[in-house]
Amino acid sequence: MSVRAGIVVTGTEVLNGRVSDRNGPWISERLAELGVEVSSILCVGDRRSDLEAALAFMRSQGMDLVVTSGGLGPTADDLTAEVVAGFAGLELELDEGMEQKIAAILRSFARRLRLDEEALRVANRKQAMVPAGATAIDPAGTAPGLVVPTDGLVVIVLPGPPRELRAMWEPAIATEPVRDLLARATPFLGFTLRMIGTPESEIAKSLREIEDETDLSALEVTTCLRRGEIEVDVRYRDGAEAAAEALREGLSRRQSRYLFSSDGETIDSIVARALRGRRLGLAESCTGGLLAARITDAPGASEYLAGSVVAYSNEAKSELLGVDPELIAAHGAVSPEVAAAMAAGALERFDADVAVSVTGIAGPEGGTEEKPVGYVCLCALTADGEELARDPVIPGGREDIRERSALVAMHMLRIVLGGGEPPL
Amino acid sequence: MSVRAGIVVTGTEVLNGRVSDRNGPWISERLAELGVEVSSILCVGDRRSDLEAALAFMRSQGMDLVVTSGGLGPTADDLTAEVVAGFAGLELELDEGMEQKIAAILRSFARRLRLDEEALRVANRKQAMVPAGATAIDPAGTAPGLVVPTDGLVVIVLPGPPRELRAMWEPAIATEPVRDLLARATPFLGFTLRMIGTPESEIAKSLREIEDETDLSALEVTTCLRRGEIEVDVRYRDGAEAAAEALREGLSRRQSRYLFSSDGETIDSIVARALRGRRLGLAESCTGGLLAARITDAPGASEYLAGSVVAYSNEAKSELLGVDPELIAAHGAVSPEVAAAMAAGALERFDADVAVSVTGIAGPEGGTEEKPVGYVCLCALTADGEELARDPVIPGGREDIRERSALVAMHMLRIVLGGGEPPL
Repeated sequence: MSVRAGIVVTGTEVLNGRVSDRNGPWISERLAELGVEVSSILCVGDRRSDLEAALAFMRSQGMDLVVTSGGLGPTADDLTAEVVAGFAGLELELDEGMEQKIAAILRSFARRLRLDEEALRVANRKQAMVPAGATAIDPAGTAPGLVVPTDGLVVIVLPGPPRELRAMWEPAIATEPVRDLLARATPFLGFTLRMIGTPESEIAKSLREIEDETDLSALEVTTCLRRGEIEVDVRYRDGAEAAAEALREGLSRRQSRYLFSSDGETIDSIVARALRGRRLGLAESCTGGLLAARITDAPGASEYLAGSVVAYSNEAKSELLGVDPELIAAHGAVSPEVAAAMAAGALERFDADVAVSVTGIAGPEGGTEEKPVGYVCLCALTADGEELARDPVIPGGREDIRERSALVAMHMLRIVLGGGEPPL
Repeated sequence: MSVRAGIVVTGTEVLNGRVSDRNGPWISERLAELGVEVSSILCVGDRRSDLEAALAFMRSQGMDLVVTSGGLGPTADDLTAEVVAGFAGLELELDEGMEQKIAAILRSFARRLRLDEEALRVANRKQAMVPAGATAIDPAGTAPGLVVPTDGLVVIVLPGPPRELRAMWEPAIATEPVRDLLARATPFLGFTLRMIGTPESEIAKSLREIEDETDLSALEVTTCLRRGEIEVDVRYRDGAEAAAEALREGLSRRQSRYLFSSDGETIDSIVARALRGRRLGLAESCTGGLLAARITDAPGASEYLAGSVVAYSNEAKSELLGVDPELIAAHGAVSPEVAAAMAAGALERFDADVAVSVTGIAGPEGGTEEKPVGYVCLCALTADGEELARDPVIPGGREDIRERSALVAMHMLRIVLGGGEPPL
C-alpha cells in the first residue's frame, strides 16, 4: 500500500528567491526512506489565503500526509498553526505546559541577549496555542511543532529554521497518527550508480538495450547530472530484486569505463577512504581553496590532509611551492609544466604521499585564443613516482569551471590512489 | 495593477530531494524585478497527472503568468510541452524550422561525442513539436522553449538545465504575450539593509517603534537570517518613498552598531572594494580553504588576493607559516596566540598588506571542556600594525562552524580595512 505525501514550505524569503529552500528536499529524502511517495513540494508566502489554498491543493491530490515548514514564529505573519487548525476544523487552545516550556527557553535566551523578558513572553504565548486534539512537539528552538490529524489526512507542522526542523523530525514521526500512517508504507529498496565522462544520452541508450531483455517496469529509474557526474538512481519495492540486479549488472557492464561507484558511495567518500593512512598535499590556483574546502568538509579530514597552498599570485607559486619563476615565464602560469611543478612543490612542502595541483583560467577575463577561459591544467603525483596529468577545457561560467576543476582533481586522486582509470 | 505569477518546477530528482532546485528562486527573483508578484512555486514529478494538477492549481489561484521549468528533453517522460498544449486546448504541430535548428545542433553534438546521429534525430523530433499558436523560443541547449497564451493566462515553458533556462529567459519575456502582460505590472522599488550581531527580535522591536511614528502599511518588509547575517528587505511601489525612507533612516539609526550595508551591498563586495590596491594573504585551519574559496568566487580576485595557506596539520603551520612549534605546544593549535602567529606568517610569506587567520575546532570530534567544538580563534593584521582578534564559540554543526568562521573573518577584514567596528 502506498502513502502519498506533499510538502508545504512557507516564507516570503523562500518564495522571492532570496533564500533557497533546504527543508523541502530534506523532508522529501526522509519520507522516501520511509517508503512514502512525495508528489509535490509547494512553496507559498506568509499569506493566509495562499496557505489555505496550499492545504486544499494537497487534500485535492489525495495526500495522506502533509508536512509544513515555517510560519511558527512569534509575529503576526506567522500563521501556520492557526491556518492548519482551521483546515482541520479544530479550535486553538492554550497548552499551559508548553507555555511554561517556551517561557523557560525564552528566559535564558532573554538573559543572554539582554532583551525585555516580558515583551518576549507575551509575543511568544502565541506559540503555545495548540489545536484541540493535536499533539505538540517540543521545540528545538522556541517554536513547538504540531501533529494534527484531520479527516483522512495527517498534517505535521514544523518550524522553518532547518536545524530546528531536523531536530524535531524524529519526535514528529514517532507520534501515534504518523506511526499508524507509516505502518502502511512499504519502504523502498534501491541503489545508486555513479559515472563520470559519459553523456546522459548514452545512459538512456544502455537502459533501452537492457529493457529489450528484461522487464524494468517495476523499477523507478532516475538519471540525473549532478555536479558534473551522472547519477542513476534505482528504486523498487519487494519482489523486483531480479529486475533491479539485471539493471545494475547491465548498466555496470555497458558503462564500465565510466562507472566509479555502484553502491551509492560518493567520490568524496571514495577518495577519503583511499587516503586513509596517507598524507595529502594540495596546490591550488584557479580553484582558490575550493578543493581543500571540499576535502575538509568531511569530518576527520585532518587525519590525511596536511594542507593546501592556494597560490593565486605567481610570487606565491614560487615562494610557497618552489615553482621556478622561469618556468612560469616560459610556459605561463596556466600550463601542464607549471601544474606539474606545483604538484611536486606540494608533495615536498607538505612532506606528502600524494599531491594534486590545479591551475587554470576561471574567467571571465584572462582567456586567449590559445588558452581560452575554462582551460585548466591538473597534475596528480605520488611519492612513489606515479603521475597523472590532464588539461581539459571546461565549459560554463566561472563557478562551473572552478567546481568542475575541483571535481576532476578528486577523480584524478581516485585514479592515482588505485581506483581504476575512466576517462575524464 | 498587479500581475500574479506561479512557477512550476518538474523533475523527479528535484522532488525526491537529490538535486536542489535552482530555477524556482532564480525565476522568482527575475519576476520580482519586473514587478510581478510570485505567489507560489510548485515542484512536481514527471507524471502527467501531477503536471496537469499543477497547472490547474495555478489557474485556480488566479495567476496571470505561469513559468514552468523542465520536462522538455527527448525521452518519453519529458511531458511538459504536451501537457501544456492540452491545458491550453491546443494541438501540437511539428515546427519544421525548429526541427532543422535542433538537427543542426545535434549533428555537431553527435559528431563530437561519436553518437548515432539518426537515433538522436528521431528522439529529438519530439522536441520540435509546438502547440498551434504558441511561440517557440530558440534552444540554448537542444530543447526549445515555448510561450503559450491560454484563456486569461500565459504559460512560459523553459528547459530544466539552469544554464539553458537562464539563456532563454530574455527571449521568452520579449515575446508579445509576455510583453503585453508585463506592461500591466508596476516594477517594485526597494532596498536591502544588512546587519550582523543583532537578533531578529531586536529588529522586530525597532520596526514596531518606527511603525508607532510612521505608517508602514505600503511597504513589504521581510527580515531574514541569511548565512549568519540579518537582511531586511524593503519593497514598495511608487508613492511610498517617504515611508520607505523613514524606515531606512529609523532602522539605520537604531541598529547603527550592527548595520554594515544600507544599499544592498554584500560583505563580499565591501571587502573586495576595500582590498583594491592592497594585497591580501590568508592563513586557514578549520575553514580548510572556504575563506579563500569565498574570496576567489569574485571575478578579479587575483588583483588583491596573493593566496592562502590552508595549514591543516601542525607541521604545515610551522613549515609554511613559520609558526613556532613551541607556541603550538604551549597554547594548542587552536589558541589566540597561534592565530596571531598564523596571521603574522601569512603577512610575511605573501608579502601582504593585510592578513587574516582562522584556527578552530569544527568538530564533530576534538572538543574539550576548555575548548569546545565551535571554539574559533581569528586574527586580522595589517602591515601598518593594526590588529583585531576574536575567539567566539560558534554554535551549530561542522558546516555551520566553518561557514560562520569564514563570515567572521570577512567582517574582521572589513573592520581592519576601515569599515567601522560593530561587535561580532
